[in-house]
Amino acid sequence: MTPPRPALDLSLLPDGGVRWLDASGPNSDIVISTRMRLARNVSGYAFTGRARDGERLRMLAQVRDALGAVPSLSGSLLVRLEELATVDRQLLHERHLVSKELAGLDPQHPIRSGAAVFLGESVGLLVNEEDHLRLQSLRSGFAVPQAFESVHRLDQELGSQVPFAFHREFGFLTACPTNAGTGLRASVLIHLPGLVLTKEIGKVLSGLQQMGLTYRGLYGEGSEVVGNFFQLSNQTTLGRSEEELQDLLVRVVRHVIEREEEARRVLVRDAGYIIEDKLWRAYGTLRYARSLTFDEAMNYLSGVRLAVGLKLITGLSVYTLNKLLIFAQSAHLAHLEQRTLTESETNLARAKYVRQVLVSEGGGVE
Amino acid sequence: MTPPRPALDLSLLPDGGVRWLDASGPNSDIVISTRMRLARNVSGYAFTGRARDGERLRMLAQVRDALGAVPSLSGSLLVRLEELATVDRQLLHERHLVSKELAGLDPQHPIRSGAAVFLGESVGLLVNEEDHLRLQSLRSGFAVPQAFESVHRLDQELGSQVPFAFHREFGFLTACPTNAGTGLRASVLIHLPGLVLTKEIGKVLSGLQQMGLTYRGLYGEGSEVVGNFFQLSNQTTLGRSEEELQDLLVRVVRHVIEREEEARRVLVRDAGYIIEDKLWRAYGTLRYARSLTFDEAMNYLSGVRLAVGLKLITGLSVYTLNKLLIFAQSAHLAHLEQRTLTESETNLARAKYVRQVLVSEGGGVE
Repeated sequence: MTPPRPALDLSLLPDGGVRWLDASGPNSDIVISTRMRLARNVSGYAFTGRARDGERLRMLAQVRDALGAVPSLSGSLLVRLEELATVDRQLLHERHLVSKELAGLDPQHPIRSGAAVFLGESVGLLVNEEDHLRLQSLRSGFAVPQAFESVHRLDQELGSQVPFAFHREFGFLTACPTNAGTGLRASVLIHLPGLVLTKEIGKVLSGLQQMGLTYRGLYGEGSEVVGNFFQLSNQTTLGRSEEELQDLLVRVVRHVIEREEEARRVLVRDAGYIIEDKLWRAYGTLRYARSLTFDEAMNYLSGVRLAVGLKLITGLSVYTLNKLLIFAQSAHLAHLEQRTLTESETNLARAKYVRQVLVSEGGGVE
Repeated sequence: MTPPRPALDLSLLPDGGVRWLDASGPNSDIVISTRMRLARNVSGYAFTGRARDGERLRMLAQVRDALGAVPSLSGSLLVRLEELATVDRQLLHERHLVSKELAGLDPQHPIRSGAAVFLGESVGLLVNEEDHLRLQSLRSGFAVPQAFESVHRLDQELGSQVPFAFHREFGFLTACPTNAGTGLRASVLIHLPGLVLTKEIGKVLSGLQQMGLTYRGLYGEGSEVVGNFFQLSNQTTLGRSEEELQDLLVRVVRHVIEREEEARRVLVRDAGYIIEDKLWRAYGTLRYARSLTFDEAMNYLSGVRLAVGLKLITGLSVYTLNKLLIFAQSAHLAHLEQRTLTESETNLARAKYVRQVLVSEGGGVE
């Protein structure tokens, strides 16, 4: 008999681990969040992918023991992913707290023994991901320096307790050479409905790529984009300093924000009432639909988010909309309903949840 | 200098002449209204189309003088159409009180001198239409006998005061031979979304035609149908008695109502939540859109009307929806805004009006 799986209790985390959704950061009408992560490996162990089960567990134990002297993670919640049901691992992934690979949701990478995450207030430490350690910080809005500072502090604190694999020439060693060097990946999650509606987005995205950044949709891999949410990040970490990477991201994202703001002004100027109508219809559909697919919900939320940014819709906060982005995902809905849901049940539950939130957190919208 | 046109004051009429919208009649969830009209001509005058201006005016005067002895029209409001601005004539037409031809809105028939209508509580008398007189009764719901009784009483009362052109063999003589005989045209305005959604409508409509009925959309001529509203009426008036025509209409319409009810049961049984979602989205769009074309408004209203019929949406009356059908038309909106509106202004005004009515008369809908 297998013992019952422990339930995941995210209520132990401040804000359930989604403080980064609260729209308190700079430019948070356009930039949802900034994420910084550092890839590190611990000397003396094979890379995760090649390590044996026991080796991964020993490495986890060593890190765990070291955390007493790491203030950034004091009081953090340790989640052993292999102990969780799939739906709970999916929930952590939907909340952006663990990667798909670490959560064992990627068919090519089933859940690994020793896969774990330490969740602190504004930083997280993923253990036994592709690299032994992934240090990450997630912040509300366009907050590159703040996110870097958090993850950098964790890096310093942890590095003084645990020996990181480091090479004089290549810098920090990583399982995949594209992460070697600083091991830094910096990304922002940005909402660009104006550029999509004005059909400027293609130009902006190819400009990004020329400057060494890459993009993908908020959900799923590849270039699939839903709801006009884009994740912009640096392509390489080798051969550039952490400062250069941050500077590049800041410069490019600032430019993208300006282009988006300009596109919004153009939309309002040239197609004011058409846009207004379109966005209010999106609100009306979210407010009353009885079934919503994920893509639909994201696309309509995108419209409402733009309307709130343009002050066409008032009485509804960006925080509420950000929460809907995350909590209207299927594992969250299954968690809410406390049972496994079929696809069509998920769509019904999503519509019900969205309606409830719009009524309770934006009842005055007209 | 032309004297200012007198403004049309429909508030002088009980319910503004639209008591037939109040959904008090039988089967009014499916049948909006029943209309009966009798075509009559007055002996001693050329048919309207061939009469001179003076002749038409003399005929009108003769009828007017006779009305003192016509209880059905006691206290009726005389509207001289030629004295009204186009928008006011259009308003009367939108309210189903005068025909397009009498209102001078048909490009082939500009407004005629002597064109007038006497508007009583449940009957109307159109003067100088294609025929000298068109007696009409408009009732809420599926009310063939009641509508016939009203128009028949008016016919008896008026016929005893005014000499109608009558031929022993052909019956009542009319300008167009298709109206000769009883001169009776009976029609119902019926809402058939279930048959349209189940794709049964084609079969039902061709069945109708085989039984001697004809159909057209609620608005516009020809077979153009908007919002799943159909006007079903008898094709010929010659060679059948008034009773036979009524019986036919009653029998056929009852059959259509049963088919519609069956289609609705099938929809709910086989596609319950898909339908529910579709209809609530229609409500959400009407409730929040900022611009609505007439066709869109009718199609969404059709959805909401079906939802109210299926009791999926409660707290909203069929009367409210019927009023929207009529009052969301362009002349009504121009009247409401008290100015001429361009097409896009009309769409904005329509969305605003629909929103206001849905809030004030169905605020509790969730």
